[in-house]
Order: sequence, then C-alpha cells, then structure tokens
Amino acid sequence: MKLYGYWRSTSSYRLRIALALKGLTPEPMPVHLVRNGGEHRGEAYRRINPQGRVPSLALDDGSVLIQSPAIIEYLEEVYPEPPLLPADPVARARVRGVAAIIGCDIHPLHNVGPLNHLRRDLGRSEEEVGAWIGRWISEGFAAVEALIGDDGYCFGPIPRLADVYLVPQVYAAERFAVPLAPFPRITRVAALAAAHPAFAMAHPARQPDAE
Amino acid sequence: MKLYGYWRSTSSYRLRIALALKGLTPEPMPVHLVRNGGEHRGEAYRRINPQGRVPSLALDDGSVLIQSPAIIEYLEEVYPEPPLLPADPVARARVRGVAAIIGCDIHPLHNVGPLNHLRRDLGRSEEEVGAWIGRWISEGFAAVEALIGDDGYCFGPIPRLADVYLVPQVYAAERFAVPLAPFPRITRVAALAAAHPAFAMAHPARQPDAE
Repeated sequence: MKLYGYWRSTSSYRLRIALALKGLTPEPMPVHLVRNGGEHRGEAYRRINPQGRVPSLALDDGSVLIQSPAIIEYLEEVYPEPPLLPADPVARARVRGVAAIIGCDIHPLHNVGPLNHLRRDLGRSEEEVGAWIGRWISEGFAAVEALIGDDGYCFGPIPRLADVYLVPQVYAAERFAVPLAPFPRITRVAALAAAHPAFAMAHPARQPDAE
Repeated sequence: MKLYGYWRSTSSYRLRIALALKGLTPEPMPVHLVRNGGEHRGEAYRRINPQGRVPSLALDDGSVLIQSPAIIEYLEEVYPEPPLLPADPVARARVRGVAAIIGCDIHPLHNVGPLNHLRRDLGRSEEEVGAWIGRWISEGFAAVEALIGDDGYCFGPIPRLADVYLVPQVYAAERFAVPLAPFPRITRVAALAAAHPAFAMAHPARQPDAE
C-alpha cells in the first residue's frame, strides 16, 4: 500500500490513525499542499486522484481509493480487527453520526480551499477568517460534546471511528487557537488518545514530511 | 419510524431517497428551517436531535439516529435489499468515494449556516454568495463527472449510494442556477433518476411541507 497525504491535513491524519489502529503501515507518499502552487493540483497527482485532493490510498494491485470516509469504511470491511465500529446497528449509527458531524459539518468549512476563497476572493481579514473557523469548530464540538460518553474514548474503553475523526479535529482546533475549555469530554478523549501508540504514530509531527 | 426533515434540505432529500429505495415509508415530521427563526434551533427539536439539524430518524423503539451518512449506512445494514452498495470492497469504496465528494466537499459549503454567515456576518453580496456556491458545486461536480460511468446510473444499471447523494445535489445546483452543461454524465444520471419511482416520491415538491 502507498498512502498519498500531507502531514498536517486533517483527513490525511484521520486516515493514518485508522491505518495504524488496523496495524497497517503503507509507504508514505507525501504530497505538498503549498509548495509549487500545491502538488495536489499538479498533473502527476491528478493521474492518481482525479479530484486532486489528499489522502489517496494505492492498493498493491494498483487500485487507488480516494476520500477518507470511503477509505476508512474499506479498511473496516477488509481488515475487520480491531473493529472501529461496534456490532449493534444503532450503536454503529451513533459512532458514525459523530464522525459525520466532524467530517461533514466541521472540517470541510476550514479546509484550505474555502479559507483561501475567503482570503483571496472575498478579501476577508485574518480576524474574520479566524472567527469563521472558530464558529464551525465550536458549534460542531458542542454537538459532539453532547453525544459522547463520560469516560474512556468517545464511546467506551476502545477507540472507534468517532475517535479517529475527533483527534485530528482537536489538533486543527489547537492549531487555529479555538478555545477547548467548553468541551471537557472532547479534551479527555484527546488526552487519552495521545498516549495510544496508533494515535501517536499517526500524529503530524511524526510524519516524514513534517516541517 | 418518523422522519424529521425539511422538504428542500439536501440531506433530508438524500435520506428520503434511501428510505424510498429500501421501500420504507416513515411518518413525515416536518421541521421548518426558516419559520419562527428556525424550528430546528428550538428546544423541542433539540430534545430529539441535540445538534439541531435535519434530518433525524426516530425508530419505533424510540431511538433517534442523526446525520444522513450515518442513517443511510444503518439502513443499508438493517434493510440490505435492494443494496445501495455493490459487494466488492473496492467497488464499494468507489461508490462511497463519490458520495463523500458530495457529502463532504460540496454540500456543507452551501448549507444554510455558512451562507448566512457570508451574508450577515461578513456582509457579502448575493453575487458573491452565488459565486461561492457555484465554485464548490462546479469543482466537486468536475471530480464526480470524472469518476462515474458512461451510461446508466453513476455506477451501472441500478441506483447506488452515489446516486442517492448526487440527485439532491443536482436539485440544489439547479436551484442556485449553477450551469450543468459541463457535466453530461451527471445530467444523464439525474434524468434517469427522475423517472424512478423512489427518486420521484422523495422529490422536495412531493413533500407535505413543500411551499
């Protein structure tokens, strides 16, 4: 396997955690999102992923999978142990629901494209961009905080799909200086995950392309 | 089952299609997103869904599921026929990948919250808001167009998860007057779906709260 990603990208980090939890160690293929006007926009990378986004996972037979939510569901199906989802369908929907709040209602709004549009096309100040980011993270985290449990990871003693999504989102929140004090459950989960070997090895600072 | 949703909401429409394809007919529970400052923000609805968003699906045992991606995966697990995903894991990832482009990279950016933030908090004009919407739909559709097939639905002769996501996104594109001429595969899929009974009964205009 080859993992095309960028050290600081939220969705690359998310996929690295899922891979590490499954005990998979693909070859890292860094794609620099800033250098040369963004290597993800270049022709070479678009031949791998026509959408020109990270991450992508190239399988050993040459198939390329795109979109972290789709790739992580693939991993869960093909490498079922340890499971990222519980067995009961309603419990699975609760775990996937928290993942979707992060993957749909928070992260897309502070992705590099929308932030650059706010800055360059709409001429917004860094203060306005920061308020935009903070709003979506804070509103989304308020929902997550209400839905996850009082101890352990988001949904009990072992990490699940919700934690795979939450930990990179907390990293992004810290990077953007969004206050986390209103979210004690979320900060508890992030602290617990920081001590877990799979989460630790997936951390942006541990990647070969980290700056 | 009770389906809390809004006739014109993209994610409510998406869930209605999945339910209709599975032959499920939950009781409609309209939640008006504009009237009374937004009924989804009210205390009564937040007791059902702490995030205060539509759709939510209340099961007959009282469990409430939130977030359309999570609810649709639940439906696929509990009501496997007809399947919204093919059997092969790589093929499933391709179908889910197109769904994720729409569910993560397009729809969240033109959701009501971000558009209102652009208008009210950032003072942007309707022309600027329209360009914002058009950019994310057009960029996302260019990727979808490159990934789906040359005839039938997105991935063959029967509707799959990608079509469940695509058809409401085309409806939104038309509503926002985004040009669809560059996307002949997408418009072919939308035309085919319009003649399918499940897609037809899920259409916003057919809902009891349609205006």
